[in-house]
Amino acid sequence: MEAVKVFAPASVANVAVGYDVLGFAIEQPGDNIIIRKKGNKPLHFHSLHGVGKRVPRNIEKNTAGLAALKVLEALGEKDMPLEMELHKNMRFGTGLGSSAASAVAGAMAVNELFDRPFEKKDLLPFAVAGEELADGAWHADNVAPSLLGGMVLIRDNKTLDFKKIHVPQGLYVALIFPHVQVLTSDSRAVVSEIVSLQQLVSQTGNMGAFIAGMFTSDFELIRRSLKDHVIEPQRKHLIPYYEELKEIALSSDALGFNISGAGPTMFALCANNLVAEIICDKARAFLKSKYLESDVFVSRINMEGACRC
Amino acid sequence: MEAVKVFAPASVANVAVGYDVLGFAIEQPGDNIIIRKKGNKPLHFHSLHGVGKRVPRNIEKNTAGLAALKVLEALGEKDMPLEMELHKNMRFGTGLGSSAASAVAGAMAVNELFDRPFEKKDLLPFAVAGEELADGAWHADNVAPSLLGGMVLIRDNKTLDFKKIHVPQGLYVALIFPHVQVLTSDSRAVVSEIVSLQQLVSQTGNMGAFIAGMFTSDFELIRRSLKDHVIEPQRKHLIPYYEELKEIALSSDALGFNISGAGPTMFALCANNLVAEIICDKARAFLKSKYLESDVFVSRINMEGACRC
Repeated sequence: MEAVKVFAPASVANVAVGYDVLGFAIEQPGDNIIIRKKGNKPLHFHSLHGVGKRVPRNIEKNTAGLAALKVLEALGEKDMPLEMELHKNMRFGTGLGSSAASAVAGAMAVNELFDRPFEKKDLLPFAVAGEELADGAWHADNVAPSLLGGMVLIRDNKTLDFKKIHVPQGLYVALIFPHVQVLTSDSRAVVSEIVSLQQLVSQTGNMGAFIAGMFTSDFELIRRSLKDHVIEPQRKHLIPYYEELKEIALSSDALGFNISGAGPTMFALCANNLVAEIICDKARAFLKSKYLESDVFVSRINMEGACRC
Repeated sequence: MEAVKVFAPASVANVAVGYDVLGFAIEQPGDNIIIRKKGNKPLHFHSLHGVGKRVPRNIEKNTAGLAALKVLEALGEKDMPLEMELHKNMRFGTGLGSSAASAVAGAMAVNELFDRPFEKKDLLPFAVAGEELADGAWHADNVAPSLLGGMVLIRDNKTLDFKKIHVPQGLYVALIFPHVQVLTSDSRAVVSEIVSLQQLVSQTGNMGAFIAGMFTSDFELIRRSLKDHVIEPQRKHLIPYYEELKEIALSSDALGFNISGAGPTMFALCANNLVAEIICDKARAFLKSKYLESDVFVSRINMEGACRC
């Protein structure tokens, strides 16, 4: 292969019951990378596009670049002359795993260029290493779904032990991204390091029930269990009109509503497309009435994850 | 129906990742109840047998009696002349849900006598009301599996929202009951009301993975996730030779090892009968070498739960 183009999608992490451990991929937006065997310089950026113009050009300081480099190192191909184009279509700080998508695209691009020496799942540690650069933490709840598609549970972030969770037919998500800035550092700082035993019992009960609901396509159980008594109460004040938007979603029959990643994007999981569309229409009108700019859109769960285009 | 006999099995609660929310039924031991339309006195005990000799004869102060009475009240048959025999084959304070089995048998007996006016699952609140008498708390993680069989997740104890969890073919359990007394009050007192966020993340990750492992018969995932970083470290010192017995079980290929309920019974979940038998043989020999009396036995997961005999 002389050149390939890949795509890695955005993702929703911290899915209600699954703080730090549960995420799913969405269809759009996402990042594209084109990689070419060309010239005589080791891996470097030929060009950065879109939001990508704001990321470091230094390969080792760039999530996509570092993830790509890690794969090259593992293949013993670090010195291969390569140029990369990053087409970054997602803003940073939306809560939709922007840096994770770049890292996944970087790892994926090299693997495709070399005709898949690694299985897709084995790219996970390389992509997490890239993501760590942006995030400062070693965790995979955005990276794993962006890479593998579907909904992914990270049993243990340290060892990257993950399991793909069955996604019932018909599941859609409404995404509401108000154009406000929530600093990840703020979003982290408000979360207490201490929880009560009762919260633990309730969160594990809901987590178990949510996973059981997914595997048995039991939408009513998903609805009852898609709750977060721990993180949401501490973070919701960082997001304007959170309670109002949640009320709009739940009264329109969403299965659940929560903060995507560290916010400010919010997501409503829905049992079908129509419910998701209605929620988006209402949320869009509501935010417009508050003179707050926003992107509001519907997505299916992206079952494929990162792919060659 | 003039008379019926029912059986309700013992159960294992607090299954590692599922403190207060996850339990499963075993085949034996269990309690039997015979109930008869006879005489002219409302529900009363004709006789108490086995360990049952030590329980209150007053119907309203007895878990089996109270559960039976609650069902009779719901049927408007409180004054029907009835006599009950309780054959109690399980000691108290073993950690195998002895009082729960009695409560389930009581509710079940009345329902069978009246030709099943309630669906089995709808007996749950009556049995929990009986169990509450012995336990002082409204929870269903022993009652639900004893009644319904299999493995049951209680999403929420308050509303008794439960879900039956798929049990993979071949799952067996080794049970080790050393004849020592662990007071439930002691067992409760040692558990801290505070946990760390990290413990919450790790416990929800393991719970999600365990449930996913059960639904997909993924024994290796079950093995990796059947862990308890929260309760076990606080309680294990109450049980003699806990660490040694755990080492015996895990080195003999158990999927996981933990305290059953509030102890002192310990259980090892196993992927087949042979592993469970080997663990029992080794544990029996070990406890004998320590001059500690014990009951050590193998069970399948009891998929039927309470039944008419």
